[in-house]
Amino acid sequence: MPKLDLDAIEQSNATGYPPEYAGAVKERWYRRLAPVGGLKDFGVSHVELKPGAWSSQRHWHEGEDEFVVMLSGEAMLVDDSGRTPMRAGDCAAFPKNDGNGHVLINESAESCTFIAVGRSADTDCHYPDIDMHLDAAKGRQVRKDGSDF
Amino acid sequence: MPKLDLDAIEQSNATGYPPEYAGAVKERWYRRLAPVGGLKDFGVSHVELKPGAWSSQRHWHEGEDEFVVMLSGEAMLVDDSGRTPMRAGDCAAFPKNDGNGHVLINESAESCTFIAVGRSADTDCHYPDIDMHLDAAKGRQVRKDGSDF
Repeated sequence: MPKLDLDAIEQSNATGYPPEYAGAVKERWYRRLAPVGGLKDFGVSHVELKPGAWSSQRHWHEGEDEFVVMLSGEAMLVDDSGRTPMRAGDCAAFPKNDGNGHVLINESAESCTFIAVGRSADTDCHYPDIDMHLDAAKGRQVRKDGSDF
Repeated sequence: MPKLDLDAIEQSNATGYPPEYAGAVKERWYRRLAPVGGLKDFGVSHVELKPGAWSSQRHWHEGEDEFVVMLSGEAMLVDDSGRTPMRAGDCAAFPKNDGNGHVLINESAESCTFIAVGRSADTDCHYPDIDMHLDAAKGRQVRKDGSDF
């Protein structure tokens, strides 16, 4: 049965961020759809941002494209070009290695939901605003000077 | 600017199907988002099905996963398990090589829209209901006995 029973897939707010940067994504609740759906070519997440929650710290990946389509509610897309409201049906593309850090922030009083498509991060990820870096070789977040949290 | 201006992307109803099977998709109007968005890891299409239109002939791919999320309106998902209505926010996954032919049919009186994610079809595609087969080596649709249309 190809249709996915979203309600039957547990939501998680787990993050690999260190405590000092984890607060922003504490109310980001996601479901991983690819494992349930049997997909291996790409990953798909169904994400709910409760009021105030961020989709991530603002970031860009060296080696993985990302795509987002909004399903409900409103989020503010923040990137180097400024602030762009995203509402149901709006789409955004984040090409790998473009150097343009991006994040969706729910600044509204209601939850918003979106679908995010991408692959597992096998390359370094850059966070322009904070002292954090995903070191793919180490497989974890470190400080920008390479030291551990 | 990561947000895509959908209205600025031309819709197409082009198909590689031979005339006898092309009628079903004549009112399938799609926009290819990955080229505009600079994405290479996967393809993304924004698809509008006008009333009566099919997303494709019922099919399954040997080597490409597909994922769909409905944005507006209603479509009937038809596959080996039966008929399943799909409405805004509903998601469906079509794993490669699962042998379960699928199609979305707009049986309603209004247009519906969805996002489809996948890769270019570099492998054979099977159509269980009709005398057509995508022969990847030849790069075109042929009849099931291998002859040309």
